[in-house]
Amino acid sequence: MSSLEPSRIYLDPAEMPTHWYNVAADLPTPPAPPLGPDGEVVKPEQMQAIFPDAIIEQEMSAQRWIEIPEEVRDIYRLWRPSPLVRAHRLEAALGTPAKIFYKYEGVSPAGSHKPNSAVPQAFYNKQAGIKRLTTETGAGQWGSSISFAGQMFGLDVRVYMVNVSYHQKPYRRLMMQTWGAEVFASPSELTQTGRDALAKDANNPGSLGLAISEAVEEAASRADTNYTLGSVLNHVLLHQSIIGLEAKTQFDKIGLYPDVIVGPCGGGSSFGGIAFPFLADKAAGEKRAERLRCVAVEPTSCPTLTQGAYAYDFGDASGFTPLMKMYTLGHDFMPPGIHAGGLRYHGASSLVSQLTHEGLVEPLAVPQLATFDAGVQFARSEGIIPAPESCHAIRAAIDEALAAKASGEPKVILFNLTGHGHFDMTSYDRYFSGQLEDFAYPADAIRASLEHLPKVG
Amino acid sequence: MSSLEPSRIYLDPAEMPTHWYNVAADLPTPPAPPLGPDGEVVKPEQMQAIFPDAIIEQEMSAQRWIEIPEEVRDIYRLWRPSPLVRAHRLEAALGTPAKIFYKYEGVSPAGSHKPNSAVPQAFYNKQAGIKRLTTETGAGQWGSSISFAGQMFGLDVRVYMVNVSYHQKPYRRLMMQTWGAEVFASPSELTQTGRDALAKDANNPGSLGLAISEAVEEAASRADTNYTLGSVLNHVLLHQSIIGLEAKTQFDKIGLYPDVIVGPCGGGSSFGGIAFPFLADKAAGEKRAERLRCVAVEPTSCPTLTQGAYAYDFGDASGFTPLMKMYTLGHDFMPPGIHAGGLRYHGASSLVSQLTHEGLVEPLAVPQLATFDAGVQFARSEGIIPAPESCHAIRAAIDEALAAKASGEPKVILFNLTGHGHFDMTSYDRYFSGQLEDFAYPADAIRASLEHLPKVG
Repeated sequence: MSSLEPSRIYLDPAEMPTHWYNVAADLPTPPAPPLGPDGEVVKPEQMQAIFPDAIIEQEMSAQRWIEIPEEVRDIYRLWRPSPLVRAHRLEAALGTPAKIFYKYEGVSPAGSHKPNSAVPQAFYNKQAGIKRLTTETGAGQWGSSISFAGQMFGLDVRVYMVNVSYHQKPYRRLMMQTWGAEVFASPSELTQTGRDALAKDANNPGSLGLAISEAVEEAASRADTNYTLGSVLNHVLLHQSIIGLEAKTQFDKIGLYPDVIVGPCGGGSSFGGIAFPFLADKAAGEKRAERLRCVAVEPTSCPTLTQGAYAYDFGDASGFTPLMKMYTLGHDFMPPGIHAGGLRYHGASSLVSQLTHEGLVEPLAVPQLATFDAGVQFARSEGIIPAPESCHAIRAAIDEALAAKASGEPKVILFNLTGHGHFDMTSYDRYFSGQLEDFAYPADAIRASLEHLPKVG
Repeated sequence: MSSLEPSRIYLDPAEMPTHWYNVAADLPTPPAPPLGPDGEVVKPEQMQAIFPDAIIEQEMSAQRWIEIPEEVRDIYRLWRPSPLVRAHRLEAALGTPAKIFYKYEGVSPAGSHKPNSAVPQAFYNKQAGIKRLTTETGAGQWGSSISFAGQMFGLDVRVYMVNVSYHQKPYRRLMMQTWGAEVFASPSELTQTGRDALAKDANNPGSLGLAISEAVEEAASRADTNYTLGSVLNHVLLHQSIIGLEAKTQFDKIGLYPDVIVGPCGGGSSFGGIAFPFLADKAAGEKRAERLRCVAVEPTSCPTLTQGAYAYDFGDASGFTPLMKMYTLGHDFMPPGIHAGGLRYHGASSLVSQLTHEGLVEPLAVPQLATFDAGVQFARSEGIIPAPESCHAIRAAIDEALAAKASGEPKVILFNLTGHGHFDMTSYDRYFSGQLEDFAYPADAIRASLEHLPKVG
């Protein structure tokens, strides 16, 4: 075997984890609960209009291990366990003594980690007698994942897709339709929110906030319909723990353990998914986890964890959702139109935020051009063309490997390759043709939007 | 385990085959050699202007097993061994007693089986001191595969992409550029052929024949440059045998053997790749292979194996290549613009043609709409959205499974899922919106083009 042999560490489907890991059981201090507009703690029954009981229970649970239903594992097995791959060729290109591994989530039918949560969300809704799911989507990663998951359980799916994306990203829309979903440009005529918006401006380009409102309105107003969300919330991060749990089993097989774990961080589900199961070892006082660092990588254009405030804020731009304690740039912060659409969120998961606040997660902001540099270097050494979100993790992993080269340490680096870039080639086009720019959000603009934080908590 | 559990039969990278299988060693009668325009058998030295010696040797070899160089296996291991998957959910949807398996080749970085041959072609050229590879591409599957493979070995790659596709399919072009290739709209100003074509018509839309001529002209006129071809030729089918060899090992693991093998057939490399290693068992008189049927599926709009003549003909439209004994619709046959671009070829590999002529391969033509019906049914049960070429195999596999249901036989069906459809979503769009048509080529049009067959052999 040559030194360049890539090691793919497979797990047999029979070795797939049977339980998700809930980091809420291992938080150093109790989590701050979500609050209603009245400042009171949100009660489970307030969520029943849009979520099934099983999801609400998971959202509030402090139980460490939660069983993955057999019906969910059946669908996971269409692509899981996902491969853990040693990036031998990238290591050689960098000349680093570090061992770089990536967990590749792009093998799912929808091409990213998102189906890890879409499948159980569809299952629990089916079990609760729900007939239809609604959701919003921007770039389309979550919309396509819930379309796939709904089809697997025979649920109707309605996706409110931001009007601009609906017309600019027809491929993702067609993917959703191939899986049988109905996709509507938002604002639409189907909801009061949509009709009101169209009455004001018939050519409304739409926004994620507007699309959320339409999806929630439909779910709240119909007994047979529920709403689904692809990141941020606790139950989503719970489902994504399958990524890190598998990776731990795979590292066990080769007798290694990571020194650094790197993941892109927007809402926080892919980062939490890979990092939390390793943080469990730290919480349990395991010696092998003592030196472990977990790095959450965000764009400099949307620097939630590195420049935001740790405070109660709304989850959406319009102030419809409960208030959550999290790092936030302010709910009316509008990040520029960078290509890692999945990382353009003003806030971050409460769990990731708390662990960052408590020093267990290390935030890092990287500029856009450097992420594409890293993505192209990765594609040219390892073959896979990564999604722009994943490029953020690759940038940080490469920088860790170069630091290891400088210091001569044979570190073990693990990063989450959250998805492929097959539907993002126009972003690469702009990069190659020099049309991409770096954008660091001015500190005074952040200060201004932070002044609109709600006065609670 | 529930009855719906999908069984992914993984192979460990260490279990990957070390040798390719050459069906030329097991042909019932000697193969008909390629002939020059003078009717004489082509000599190896006549190919040296565009191919390295190792490839020429493989093209003419009758050796049964040919070792896969370690450097090639190193790259194969970036995605191989590919999974063999039991399509439990498709079986349930069909209500068939048949066991349906698919070998999934879409896991390669380029998204299809094509890199299986692109990688060794790049390796042998690198070994021979070649600095640059040329090729033509239409839809872009082969062009992207050779771009990836060239990058793995540090070779420059120039792709002549049919002008219309260059502008209509920017995503595939960008994929090639991400791997560092130069992509030119053909006809181009870089070759005499291209300049002549542009002089006649500055807005020439291009054709695959013209692009081949440009790529061959550049390769023939520069000592440091060679040409590569993605299907049809013997060495390409040799390399693709890795598909069927892995599948055999995977079936051995679960104690099964296929009754029917189905593959799409254009030039013939993906069909030969999956079927030939099983035909080896038949040639060796193995009892388990006695009942085996191998079905090559082509579009009714380009019915080479089912309605063509078995005769000597040119490999290209312009008559530049040697004459090959094969099923052909006539080299000036122009198939309609169906969406399975990879199956629009007037001829078929000499090896597939001979085995069809001798009754060991069973040809089948299927209409376009029925292939998309099958592809959507597959996506909605198994998740993966298949390439239009792969949909042809899925159509035939589903029909075999329905026949097994009618007869009550628990047949084992294997098909080659040659690639994903991430770059073909506009074809699905046309299907969903009712813009796709069936097209059976009229018999008199085929008779007319067969009248232009060269008078040799």
